[in-house]
Amino acid sequence: MSIKKIILTGDRPTGQLHLGHYIGSLQNRVKLQEQYKQFILVADLQALTDNANNPEKIRQNLTEVVLDYLAVGIDPKKSTIFVQSQIPEIAELTMYFLNLVTVSRLQRNPTVKEEIKQKDFGASIPVGFFVYPISQAADIAIFKANLVPVGEDQLPMIEQTNEIVRKFNTVYSPVLVEAEALVPKFGARVPGTDGKAKMGKSLGNAIYLGDSSEVLQKKVMGMFTDPNHLRVEDPGKVEGNPVFTYLDVFDPDKTKVEELKAHYKKGGLGDVVVKRRLNDVLQNFLGPIRQRREELAKDKEYILKVLKDGTEIAREVAGKTLSDVKRAMKIDYFKN
Amino acid sequence: MSIKKIILTGDRPTGQLHLGHYIGSLQNRVKLQEQYKQFILVADLQALTDNANNPEKIRQNLTEVVLDYLAVGIDPKKSTIFVQSQIPEIAELTMYFLNLVTVSRLQRNPTVKEEIKQKDFGASIPVGFFVYPISQAADIAIFKANLVPVGEDQLPMIEQTNEIVRKFNTVYSPVLVEAEALVPKFGARVPGTDGKAKMGKSLGNAIYLGDSSEVLQKKVMGMFTDPNHLRVEDPGKVEGNPVFTYLDVFDPDKTKVEELKAHYKKGGLGDVVVKRRLNDVLQNFLGPIRQRREELAKDKEYILKVLKDGTEIAREVAGKTLSDVKRAMKIDYFKN
Repeated sequence: MSIKKIILTGDRPTGQLHLGHYIGSLQNRVKLQEQYKQFILVADLQALTDNANNPEKIRQNLTEVVLDYLAVGIDPKKSTIFVQSQIPEIAELTMYFLNLVTVSRLQRNPTVKEEIKQKDFGASIPVGFFVYPISQAADIAIFKANLVPVGEDQLPMIEQTNEIVRKFNTVYSPVLVEAEALVPKFGARVPGTDGKAKMGKSLGNAIYLGDSSEVLQKKVMGMFTDPNHLRVEDPGKVEGNPVFTYLDVFDPDKTKVEELKAHYKKGGLGDVVVKRRLNDVLQNFLGPIRQRREELAKDKEYILKVLKDGTEIAREVAGKTLSDVKRAMKIDYFKN
Repeated sequence: MSIKKIILTGDRPTGQLHLGHYIGSLQNRVKLQEQYKQFILVADLQALTDNANNPEKIRQNLTEVVLDYLAVGIDPKKSTIFVQSQIPEIAELTMYFLNLVTVSRLQRNPTVKEEIKQKDFGASIPVGFFVYPISQAADIAIFKANLVPVGEDQLPMIEQTNEIVRKFNTVYSPVLVEAEALVPKFGARVPGTDGKAKMGKSLGNAIYLGDSSEVLQKKVMGMFTDPNHLRVEDPGKVEGNPVFTYLDVFDPDKTKVEELKAHYKKGGLGDVVVKRRLNDVLQNFLGPIRQRREELAKDKEYILKVLKDGTEIAREVAGKTLSDVKRAMKIDYFKN
């Protein structure tokens, strides 16, 4: 009997997903679901840790995120898509994990340090945000996940998770499983339309999977290019020019891209021409995704059913782990 | 229709209960259960926050504490006795509450500050301990408790709870209830057998409700008295002399106590005589409690059943509140 390895992955439902998500993780998930038992967590609770005042946003984006999943080819028959807040077992395991980590260890977590700096909480870091690495450890541990796809910057989170798992297994008994980080080999990443390294909703530089044809065209035609490429006849820079980075990633005709690059560098190729090419490429790429998305969006019931069914499966797995955990901790008082 | 007010109270199951518990809270609970809807929480999760390495201790003391409850007259038909860890709804509500408190607010909580000092964690405060005021707020809020019996030193905890409740009600919608601290008017307290202000397991100066007749006698005869009362004929001090403090609290014959006090102060009354009197008084007082305790201890099944039944009732109440909470937070995705 061969047992499929378990993957845990997911997103915070704070907005629709964009090309950055597609390149960084979604396309991988579509592949991984063929080979692994993949759990995809819609992390609404984690989203609430710094959006406590705005649950409506989370609620709305929950279905948007699932629409994005299904539109790109994540198959609910192969991947288990579920909602974090509907698995009380995660909250329970988090409570047990809280006792196995010290406040000072948490303060040393580099990812949290960096994120706290970015989010500009000042003196008002919500406790929920401060402890989220522990709650994330519970997300991973409760599914006994073997693999967790993450970027380099998230490696300390996996380390913290495994520290907790080892502590638990030592203090109680070895029922939990350490996870391995699955860092994409070619760390493909698309920059924002403004040329910034990262595409992000809050940065206003994202192309969403659900963007209409018109919006997409507008975003592409307004993209940042080489700021020194003022006249068509000037030689232009290709490196750090997001229009070419996108073409590298999305244009299936690599020869054509090399030709355009050479022409652009030499001078005599206008930005508008390159952008029109990119627009065609992205329209071709996103068109079918957008179409599936629109089709699926008509049936809200179905989307909820996908989440509900996935959540049911996930709860069963989580429940089993929590039973093991409670037995190991000797707090299964009512069991014989 | 008159609705009984709700009381939440409880203990950490880290040891058997002693005379200090009896005077400070148990005797009150026996009265309060006639008038109020009383929930008594056996706080095993909270006990784990600083006993994570020793769950066996918690497990054992869980039944000991319930034996103490029943032995002193807490009636499971009138009071709902339940186990914290078996109510997942508390963990869930705690997770939501974590987002409504800032790290710096938690650091300012005077009770936690003091306890952290006492417990001598050094740099290794477990996160679970650090955040326990929030988890305690969830204990209280999930039962919509109107009254929480506490000592003066615990008032900041009730304040923090109400702060969270108000925040929740403002941010989401007003489904939670503020609690009032019920501080005993005459703050009756018995000192330790060593004369220290507080009786405590870790201080080794406690008389347990379950102490055998022999152990009780030994503890009483070994009690601290007036250290300057060296010879029988010397005048002795009654103030701060725990033997007399105990007689004041437990001896039903107040005239006799006054006679003894006068005699002791004048000189000519030996410690042994007073201690024998106290031994008689405490044997009379604790005898029936001990007997009921021993009787009940024979039927472990019954004790577990009391906890199980209470936990079932408590879960139903907690489940209703959590439904309200999730609806208020708009995270009841699967409800119509």
